[in-house]
Amino acid sequence: MLKKALTAVGGAVAGFLMATVFFAEVAPNVTPQSSANLESIAEQVYVPHGELDDYYLFNSGGHSGQLFVYGVPSMRHIRTVPIFTPDPATGYGYDKESKEMLGGYTWGDFHHPALSETNGDYDGKWLFATDVANNRVAAMDLGDFHTVDILKVPNSGGPHCAAFVTENTEYVFFPTRFARPLDGFAGLDEYSEKYRGVMSAVTFDEETKKLDIAYQVALPPWSYDLSDAGKGPSADWSLLTTYNTEEATTNLEINASQADKDFIVLFNWKELADKVTNGEYEDFNGQKMIFPENLDGGMYLVPVAKSPHGVDVTPDGTRFIASGKLAPAMTVFSFEKAFEAIANEDFSGERNGIPILNYESVMEREVDPPGALGPLHTQFDDRGNAYTTMFISSEVVKWDVNTGEVLDRADTFYSPGHLVGSHGDTAAPTGEYLVSLNKIAKDNYLSVGPSHPESMDLFDISGDTMVHLSSTPVNPEPHYGQMVHRDVLKPFTVYEKDENNPLAVYDQADTRIERDGNHVSVFGITMRSKFIFDANSARPDVIEVNEGDLVSIHLTNTDFDQDITHGFGIMDYDLNFEQQPGQTKTLEFVADKPGVYPIYCTNFCSALHQEMTGYLIVNPK
Amino acid sequence: MLKKALTAVGGAVAGFLMATVFFAEVAPNVTPQSSANLESIAEQVYVPHGELDDYYLFNSGGHSGQLFVYGVPSMRHIRTVPIFTPDPATGYGYDKESKEMLGGYTWGDFHHPALSETNGDYDGKWLFATDVANNRVAAMDLGDFHTVDILKVPNSGGPHCAAFVTENTEYVFFPTRFARPLDGFAGLDEYSEKYRGVMSAVTFDEETKKLDIAYQVALPPWSYDLSDAGKGPSADWSLLTTYNTEEATTNLEINASQADKDFIVLFNWKELADKVTNGEYEDFNGQKMIFPENLDGGMYLVPVAKSPHGVDVTPDGTRFIASGKLAPAMTVFSFEKAFEAIANEDFSGERNGIPILNYESVMEREVDPPGALGPLHTQFDDRGNAYTTMFISSEVVKWDVNTGEVLDRADTFYSPGHLVGSHGDTAAPTGEYLVSLNKIAKDNYLSVGPSHPESMDLFDISGDTMVHLSSTPVNPEPHYGQMVHRDVLKPFTVYEKDENNPLAVYDQADTRIERDGNHVSVFGITMRSKFIFDANSARPDVIEVNEGDLVSIHLTNTDFDQDITHGFGIMDYDLNFEQQPGQTKTLEFVADKPGVYPIYCTNFCSALHQEMTGYLIVNPK
Repeated sequence: MLKKALTAVGGAVAGFLMATVFFAEVAPNVTPQSSANLESIAEQVYVPHGELDDYYLFNSGGHSGQLFVYGVPSMRHIRTVPIFTPDPATGYGYDKESKEMLGGYTWGDFHHPALSETNGDYDGKWLFATDVANNRVAAMDLGDFHTVDILKVPNSGGPHCAAFVTENTEYVFFPTRFARPLDGFAGLDEYSEKYRGVMSAVTFDEETKKLDIAYQVALPPWSYDLSDAGKGPSADWSLLTTYNTEEATTNLEINASQADKDFIVLFNWKELADKVTNGEYEDFNGQKMIFPENLDGGMYLVPVAKSPHGVDVTPDGTRFIASGKLAPAMTVFSFEKAFEAIANEDFSGERNGIPILNYESVMEREVDPPGALGPLHTQFDDRGNAYTTMFISSEVVKWDVNTGEVLDRADTFYSPGHLVGSHGDTAAPTGEYLVSLNKIAKDNYLSVGPSHPESMDLFDISGDTMVHLSSTPVNPEPHYGQMVHRDVLKPFTVYEKDENNPLAVYDQADTRIERDGNHVSVFGITMRSKFIFDANSARPDVIEVNEGDLVSIHLTNTDFDQDITHGFGIMDYDLNFEQQPGQTKTLEFVADKPGVYPIYCTNFCSALHQEMTGYLIVNPK
Repeated sequence: MLKKALTAVGGAVAGFLMATVFFAEVAPNVTPQSSANLESIAEQVYVPHGELDDYYLFNSGGHSGQLFVYGVPSMRHIRTVPIFTPDPATGYGYDKESKEMLGGYTWGDFHHPALSETNGDYDGKWLFATDVANNRVAAMDLGDFHTVDILKVPNSGGPHCAAFVTENTEYVFFPTRFARPLDGFAGLDEYSEKYRGVMSAVTFDEETKKLDIAYQVALPPWSYDLSDAGKGPSADWSLLTTYNTEEATTNLEINASQADKDFIVLFNWKELADKVTNGEYEDFNGQKMIFPENLDGGMYLVPVAKSPHGVDVTPDGTRFIASGKLAPAMTVFSFEKAFEAIANEDFSGERNGIPILNYESVMEREVDPPGALGPLHTQFDDRGNAYTTMFISSEVVKWDVNTGEVLDRADTFYSPGHLVGSHGDTAAPTGEYLVSLNKIAKDNYLSVGPSHPESMDLFDISGDTMVHLSSTPVNPEPHYGQMVHRDVLKPFTVYEKDENNPLAVYDQADTRIERDGNHVSVFGITMRSKFIFDANSARPDVIEVNEGDLVSIHLTNTDFDQDITHGFGIMDYDLNFEQQPGQTKTLEFVADKPGVYPIYCTNFCSALHQEMTGYLIVNPK
């Protein structure tokens, strides 16, 4: 076990912590495995052609705004799914529908993915995503791996702690990282009075595939971090961690680390929903806003070591675990004790009208592995064990939830933020694999200049000790992931014909170009290996318009054949979009540049793909 | 050896080829390796922590507009480098310099990367890229993996066959895929008279890091495909392949497959440069345009089986190889024979004033592996062997360049376009690894819906037979790659201080916010774990401006420490950019929305990264 950075930090832990926490320097010749077992480890992660990976790993792509999909155990990157940012490769954000869905935003900061759940386990239907940058929540369909809805959430300051779903996906909670003035403009001198951190209870309708906001809660002006929902006996409850309960407005690295304790917010979402039903809210910017200071029950604070970076509920829903991110110990809290303290009004005070439960009354135990530092996040296996990342001492600690006994420790390369176990945050972890999502890669891989990729360590956790299997670079920047067994997902392979879609054309004879004033509509087909915009034209693959026309190009890919995707790119018009097998999509633009513009299929589709071309002729005014 | 799709296509090869060429269906349980050697193969591709990959693989990212960097043999994706499209994760296209460099384009179609060469081998200094979509060429610095210049090339119709560099990077040739009207507007009825396919000779100045155009050539209105430059005895020459020499203007899958032969364009770039020096060009749209019909020598046509997809020069520069992409055979041509034919004026005719060399006089041999179909591209090893992808029969064929003997054949999964050997297109191939870049993955990996990733097969080619090592999914869509040994590259780790940069601030005392009319300039520092915009302010991490101000934020990352990159994101302003260690960058925008906008570090930098925040206050008008 390497003790990295401990000397420099150790003395400062209990009190004021300077910004001098630095990253471990580890010699590049450190090998986590003995050479004797390298052979079997290599075999364990090798998936030969003809076989499939066992698990999907869904990583948030951080400030790329995208979702990264990996196969486990090979750790091969299978797909990048654009969620919050345009994707020129697939035309996401270019075709009419996705362009409108993105609403003009080009950047997103996707922090935490949440797979939909039934009875506390992944059901393989939807994935929810939240955007810290521009306050959006998105839903992705796991049938075709496409984003189906994006909702801009008002009154918000960055949903860093979302998304997390309740046991049966009743809500996707969307709490805020930053406090902002709740009503109009207010400077930072009025921070404590006029700023709030707002949490939104978001719902998803599986029929309409639309997101909505059920209600919002105007929390105190603190920062809210990673969150979790209860399970089983705690299924009606959810939790958030807080930091900057000091309400500092500058230099947070120092000023938000003053108090010894911050809080976990423990709330009963069913009670809150009932209160909304009973009208106990204020209409606020079009939202049903609950003010905690007006609440009678339903929301409590649990003290926790300062600046926690998350809270995690055990698979059986009996306990929750949280830790100060600069602390040496993890704290196990008991739901039963919390419910008892609530019933007994065993409070040590209140903040902003929210009762504070007594730490000693709710806490079950502190787990303090010698020399460990910086506990962040915890996942679980199927045998009663917890796995916690230690950011500062760069390791994963395995420990027994029931006894607090530390069972194993494994180095990571380098500083692990989140970690993700196979079904590791559900009611039914499988206890097979664990991936730590590390910040800073340094010398792990071939150098690509001053900034290196992030990295992931894959562990086999099926035995008594964790076995480090592999190290994988990753684009910036996964903040959280979820790992689901491949049998849970049932993606489809071809879009079915939709004879009711007026924009779809399945028969070449129906292709046509229509003009209505200065609006030209193309109803065309893409197929191996040609474009047919108007089968009756002398040049069926040519679109001729006049300068200034509005042009709507509706294209249906009539190759109902798995993986035969066509692209449609227009040279020098900076436009490209794909049509997947059977899919109908629309591209709309103003032909504002006269001239002759080649059109071509951008997604390799056949031996004659290169010949799948045409021209856009824009007659000059 | 699987013979896929052969039955369906075989009879049609010699003549008219319908669009019915389809993709092979291969049962998912086909395993390319015997189970006996899986163990050693797994070990061969496994790179444990503490060790590095041997080779960099640089793949073009096709219609993503980006560059994908992999390590070989692990095939781990290390970095995505944005070249032609914005990248929200790193802020490429958001900071002032890269935004101006991108020129407003959001889409690019990066077809072929070209590493800079010295004496015909990679020198590890630059990578050139071309954009088919919007007619651009780019240069990337292999010191920091950043794009340093992008040039929009006028008079062009999609540089599908570029980039390819001459032996000492004198030129990056940039020929066109589509013909367009050369002078103003002309309809397709005037195609043969008024359309041209223009090739540009692009130069790169290593001092100024700027691209320029030396001259252009107004080639006939054909499509130009993959290209190569000569080496050694042929170093002064370059080659392009052509298709659609039929000059069809619609339905190319049929109309561009009529003639039995298309051409290779063989030209002496030194002679062309001399002619330009001698004034033998016309000024045309600001470019020095050579018209081949006015040329006396310097450019010739070599007949080749119809619709070739590329031409490749042998490492010793004595021969070039090209094949019709629907044909069963590869053709080896001899430079010596070509030079002799030129000297003897051994011509069979001319097209557009360019002499056609006699096929029989230049051709050395045809190599026809039984059942192989669809030869596309060829790479080389260090032992005199060539490796050619067969798109339709889905395999790589290894054959002896000197004798034409077929030595080995290996299946790919599935249809291979390009392939890339270790230094495999240089004067000094290393003969270790070969990667086929396949179109269509189908059942290779966990399903991600109707459209699957592309795929890559890695082969060990160091022995007598090719050994399939692994299959790797890849984002759409690599068209070509180059594989260079890690020892050739020397990326740096930290940007050096530049005391002459008036925008850089290295001392906290020099941080400041200046106002000049309605232009606010911030000279700030990013460091673990805070923003300092004005050290003398009560809130050094707050920027206060008025609605409507132009805001220029100059930030220097003063953490001169490998891999410590900071981000700067402004919530709801859709703005984010990174500063790598030691780097100074500028973000410029108009503060057109009043309100309070959190600022935060978007790239995880330390244990207190979460506290690295501030506010942008935009006072309402």
